[in-house]
Amino acid sequence: MAMVCLSDFEDYAKKYLPKIAWDYFAAGADDCTTRDENILAYKRIRFRPRMLRDVSVMDIRTEILGSEISFPVGIAPTGFHQLAWPDGEKSTARAARAMNTCYIASTYSTCTLEEISAAAPGGVRWFQLYIHRNRAASQQLVQRAEALGFQGLVLTADLPYTGKRRDDVRNGFRLPPHMKVKNLERAFEVCKMSPPDHSLLWHVPHERKTTGLDPSVTWNDIYWLQSLTRLPIIIKGILTREDAELAVKHGVQGIIVSNHGGRQLDEGPATIDALVEVVEAVRGRVEVYVDGGIRKGSDVLKALALGAKCVFIGRPALWGLAYKGEEGLQDVLRILQDEFRLSMALAGCASVSEIGQHLVQFSRL
Amino acid sequence: MAMVCLSDFEDYAKKYLPKIAWDYFAAGADDCTTRDENILAYKRIRFRPRMLRDVSVMDIRTEILGSEISFPVGIAPTGFHQLAWPDGEKSTARAARAMNTCYIASTYSTCTLEEISAAAPGGVRWFQLYIHRNRAASQQLVQRAEALGFQGLVLTADLPYTGKRRDDVRNGFRLPPHMKVKNLERAFEVCKMSPPDHSLLWHVPHERKTTGLDPSVTWNDIYWLQSLTRLPIIIKGILTREDAELAVKHGVQGIIVSNHGGRQLDEGPATIDALVEVVEAVRGRVEVYVDGGIRKGSDVLKALALGAKCVFIGRPALWGLAYKGEEGLQDVLRILQDEFRLSMALAGCASVSEIGQHLVQFSRL
Amino acid sequence: MAMVCLSDFEDYAKKYLPKIAWDYFAAGADDCTTRDENILAYKRIRFRPRMLRDVSVMDIRTEILGSEISFPVGIAPTGFHQLAWPDGEKSTARAARAMNTCYIASTYSTCTLEEISAAAPGGVRWFQLYIHRNRAASQQLVQRAEALGFQGLVLTADLPYTGKRRDDVRNGFRLPPHMKVKNLERAFEVCKMSPPDHSLLWHVPHERKTTGLDPSVTWNDIYWLQSLTRLPIIIKGILTREDAELAVKHGVQGIIVSNHGGRQLDEGPATIDALVEVVEAVRGRVEVYVDGGIRKGSDVLKALALGAKCVFIGRPALWGLAYKGEEGLQDVLRILQDEFRLSMALAGCASVSEIGQHLVQFSRL
Amino acid sequence: MAMVCLSDFEDYAKKYLPKIAWDYFAAGADDCTTRDENILAYKRIRFRPRMLRDVSVMDIRTEILGSEISFPVGIAPTGFHQLAWPDGEKSTARAARAMNTCYIASTYSTCTLEEISAAAPGGVRWFQLYIHRNRAASQQLVQRAEALGFQGLVLTADLPYTGKRRDDVRNGFRLPPHMKVKNLERAFEVCKMSPPDHSLLWHVPHERKTTGLDPSVTWNDIYWLQSLTRLPIIIKGILTREDAELAVKHGVQGIIVSNHGGRQLDEGPATIDALVEVVEAVRGRVEVYVDGGIRKGSDVLKALALGAKCVFIGRPALWGLAYKGEEGLQDVLRILQDEFRLSMALAGCASVSEIGQHLVQFSRL
Repeated sequence: MAMVCLSDFEDYAKKYLPKIAWDYFAAGADDCTTRDENILAYKRIRFRPRMLRDVSVMDIRTEILGSEISFPVGIAPTGFHQLAWPDGEKSTARAARAMNTCYIASTYSTCTLEEISAAAPGGVRWFQLYIHRNRAASQQLVQRAEALGFQGLVLTADLPYTGKRRDDVRNGFRLPPHMKVKNLERAFEVCKMSPPDHSLLWHVPHERKTTGLDPSVTWNDIYWLQSLTRLPIIIKGILTREDAELAVKHGVQGIIVSNHGGRQLDEGPATIDALVEVVEAVRGRVEVYVDGGIRKGSDVLKALALGAKCVFIGRPALWGLAYKGEEGLQDVLRILQDEFRLSMALAGCASVSEIGQHLVQFSRL
Repeated sequence: MAMVCLSDFEDYAKKYLPKIAWDYFAAGADDCTTRDENILAYKRIRFRPRMLRDVSVMDIRTEILGSEISFPVGIAPTGFHQLAWPDGEKSTARAARAMNTCYIASTYSTCTLEEISAAAPGGVRWFQLYIHRNRAASQQLVQRAEALGFQGLVLTADLPYTGKRRDDVRNGFRLPPHMKVKNLERAFEVCKMSPPDHSLLWHVPHERKTTGLDPSVTWNDIYWLQSLTRLPIIIKGILTREDAELAVKHGVQGIIVSNHGGRQLDEGPATIDALVEVVEAVRGRVEVYVDGGIRKGSDVLKALALGAKCVFIGRPALWGLAYKGEEGLQDVLRILQDEFRLSMALAGCASVSEIGQHLVQFSRL
Repeated sequence: MAMVCLSDFEDYAKKYLPKIAWDYFAAGADDCTTRDENILAYKRIRFRPRMLRDVSVMDIRTEILGSEISFPVGIAPTGFHQLAWPDGEKSTARAARAMNTCYIASTYSTCTLEEISAAAPGGVRWFQLYIHRNRAASQQLVQRAEALGFQGLVLTADLPYTGKRRDDVRNGFRLPPHMKVKNLERAFEVCKMSPPDHSLLWHVPHERKTTGLDPSVTWNDIYWLQSLTRLPIIIKGILTREDAELAVKHGVQGIIVSNHGGRQLDEGPATIDALVEVVEAVRGRVEVYVDGGIRKGSDVLKALALGAKCVFIGRPALWGLAYKGEEGLQDVLRILQDEFRLSMALAGCASVSEIGQHLVQFSRL
Repeated sequence: MAMVCLSDFEDYAKKYLPKIAWDYFAAGADDCTTRDENILAYKRIRFRPRMLRDVSVMDIRTEILGSEISFPVGIAPTGFHQLAWPDGEKSTARAARAMNTCYIASTYSTCTLEEISAAAPGGVRWFQLYIHRNRAASQQLVQRAEALGFQGLVLTADLPYTGKRRDDVRNGFRLPPHMKVKNLERAFEVCKMSPPDHSLLWHVPHERKTTGLDPSVTWNDIYWLQSLTRLPIIIKGILTREDAELAVKHGVQGIIVSNHGGRQLDEGPATIDALVEVVEAVRGRVEVYVDGGIRKGSDVLKALALGAKCVFIGRPALWGLAYKGEEGLQDVLRILQDEFRLSMALAGCASVSEIGQHLVQFSRL
């Protein structure tokens, strides 16, 4: 079977992953409306391609927070990569570095930050944080990440409680016994406190047992994070102009427009629709990124045309891992890169700086 | 089979109820367009969730007409609960009280008001009235309900004649011989008049036989009801701003925006769409509620964001009864409660008072 | 099988009619988009029903051009009723009279006008005319109709050539040898001219053989018709405000908004959409009717709310004939009548005069 | 099987062509959204037909760049006609001449321009050019076309690189060994340079091997072409008002609004939608044509109503060739001609000059 486009990797993963793992990665909250809308919303955007421009020399590089990456597609934070490939996040880190792009490692990694760093020294890497009720554990994680050379701290804002993903409940999803949420284990160990039961992490109704995450986090905790680290702070999960304004006001360096892949509040906006609102509110004061629903190079072009500095892929990265680990993820990134370059050329842009809102319009449909 | 969301109960009921009962509960008028639109219309409303608010302590209680209920979901009036579960409305009353919410008992109950009261003393309960040609029978019912401690009188305004529900006609729907519309039987007995043939109640074309209901009822009859009882009057079945204005003018205490589950005039508005118009007209002068199409906790959140004080569920309550009687209905209510609380938290609201129109927008689709 | 709604008759006809006859009646032009849109467009109109009006006494009668009919639904002109039932148009005439409504007999009847008149003396009846190249034959038809007591002359304006109905071409549709287009045969006989080959009438591409119809007819021919007869002239096939204005200016007494059941130009407007434009242009100066897509009593209510004085049904009448001849057509009309009366009552109207545009709104979908 | 409409030819071709050839002709870029939108967009346009106009004498002729053609439908440039029929482009040329319409021969023909000319002397014919990195080869082609009596030069502007057509990649599409891109072979021979590997032309990812086409072409190259030839220049592939304005400014004689049949940048506008924008910008200064999605005579009428002087068909011409070569293509053209004439008549237009924007409106759907 030829791997021609990202849905080929999706088909492969659906066929070869254990059902419980596939379901976990594929899950959306409730009716999965928002998960699917993330993709459908891209279809409602039409290009206005320009002709007869010199596109013989294409430059698709960009910079995020000062780091050059080979093209504006990074790896979004997702948990439990060992469910997709034995080497887990180590493979992810290697693939991202090989393709010279940014990888955001999740708090819920099945490898430690140290293992991730060692696997691919020198890569562009950010660390994604959930704030725990046990603040000492979170502080420990932030400071470890900074010490290991991670270049950004991504605070996830949309998970005070875990969304209701019906298939995970039906499956009684839990990590297999040989996998661990290693970062948290060490963090709690260092703090000499007992951690929550991570094996149960995702399938418990939010009130009966606890994930250990702190649902009382507010904007003031941005100041607390700033007091812990000199890393730039990127806030992930913003969907409205009001929150974008608050993010800027609280001094973050970047915003990731995200609805957690449609896994948290169902029936919120598609991220590409929310991007427009956020970009308008931010007025260039901080960098804005987007994740959710990216399946083709032309989706990347649309996101950039609407003001994103870079996009991040979640599930497609996991499909790539499931296919062939590091090599499979490189395949996914390479296909996106080729498609993005071709889309740019066919739209009449030879470099990322030529991409602008004039390239797109919203369809009446 | 795990009961994870309301559609699991629907699947169960469809499988285990007698076809004639399932069809009766599921029926919509004519092409069932409005019945289905009630659900689809919720899908066209998108949340605008807010992040980083302290949602560690959640308060989902509310009040309706001065009575506190545990969360803003009550049981809409529906007929013939013995078709779903042997104990019929007694089970419904017990489940509602156990969950500390409001139950609107129907004129067409298969238990008497006295049995319902005795089954769950102290519960928040309203009585739903159809006005009969025989006004003495209706008066008797109203006064019995008041004497039994029902706290509200719900006048159904949208059934001068019964809507055309094709499946009921095809099935020749009638109550099994061992079930009775007990309230009416007693009311007519007390009045020493012969009641209409209730066993035929629902399947007869509206002109050939009669349901006994009075199609000449007008707004002036609100004054008549007010002369009979000191109970607050809630009018059910309002869909336009004009009628909302008239309701307020005639001194009702509440309005239930309803299209009778799509069982009366097909191709009227979805109730969640009509709610917007009614709330705008009412301008807070009376409480506004809505029923029809509620299938998830997030639907409740949307209705409240658009101005409803509380929602009522019809068919889902019957599915719960069909599953396990009182216990099954509690399961349904508990799932809705958990989902509602989670939706609120993920949208950034810690209490019902924080819910407002800013949380939603209508999708372009 | 219970005959509960009009689609039951459709299913019956599809099952029991010869395929070639079913295909002929069902045919739409080209992709059948307009045929289907006629129905879909009704779905996009939503009622705004009013409550608590006295609907105990319902009056659904109306008048068209001064004749009272029992409810605002007549029989549209369609050809070849013997394809549906052996007695053909004689049965149609009897059913229409029995139900006290108007029947528009087609030029392409398989019974003569004389037979139709004799079958149901005293019925409200109009005659539908196509103008032939042989004007003498057309004149003869008009004058026969007037002499026989037909009360209106309906000029079809949308068939200078026959639309392309793919199934008829594939089937090589032609009338069976024992059926004749009797009116035309006699008309040409009287004129001592040889008629076109009616057996081939409908399946020939428009340029190779001719239907005998005159594609040079213009508005001036209205004056010619007025010189031939004192019957009121109703023009059928108008879809734009410009043509509605011309119709009024040329002195017609009525307009039937029609797209010939979607059998002529595909991808014109649905008739219920065009009705709005025509009614606006006419400003009450002449009566406006509509045909196409009426399948339920509530469709009739919508058409009246948007300004139609009466609607006409085409295919549903043929399904009724196919079911049981005169009796089957009465069943169809009775169902529509019951549904229309019920819809009116549920919308809060006790008589046709209370129906108005305030009852409907166009859905956003 | 009767060939009644164009989709009958499509069905035939799909059934009888080798899969690799069918896939190549049918292919769209990426998700094929734009390919399919080209067709769907026509469905969203509704006619406003006018009645009672004299349409007894129909004149459907038009002129493009001064040449009269029998009706406003020409043959768009498509490659590799021998994949559809052994005689390839010679059959196409003969059919176009027989029907007295215009044929645009592609650079990627499998017959030489000389063979095409000789097959149908005297036909209205334009030559479609891709500009090669090897400018001498392109110059040679242009001058050969002019010398052979081609009357127009069509510059394709939307293919700096080949779009990603997934099926071609999966199939490893290449020309069978016995077919050649003959024009290019000769052009490169004359220039004494080695040509690119045409057998591999279409299936290679754009960066690894090259088609030989020049991605540095800009508007200035229009001046270069004007210096080579006195033929009128038509630019093909324009989709925006900005590029339409540039085309006029650079002195082209015509614009073909085209998205290359949806084979280049996916998710650009449907051509019929882009036509409106381009016609508005051009304001009659040059002729505007459109291709893509034409499947019925009424589509032609819509395009003309929206300002196109003529339309061109791509895939339908190939289906005609696949059916019966020259004869099959004539069948396709004749059906379109009959349908176009009938649509005009039913819309009330007796000649092409009566077609205007008043005939159409965009549907709300």
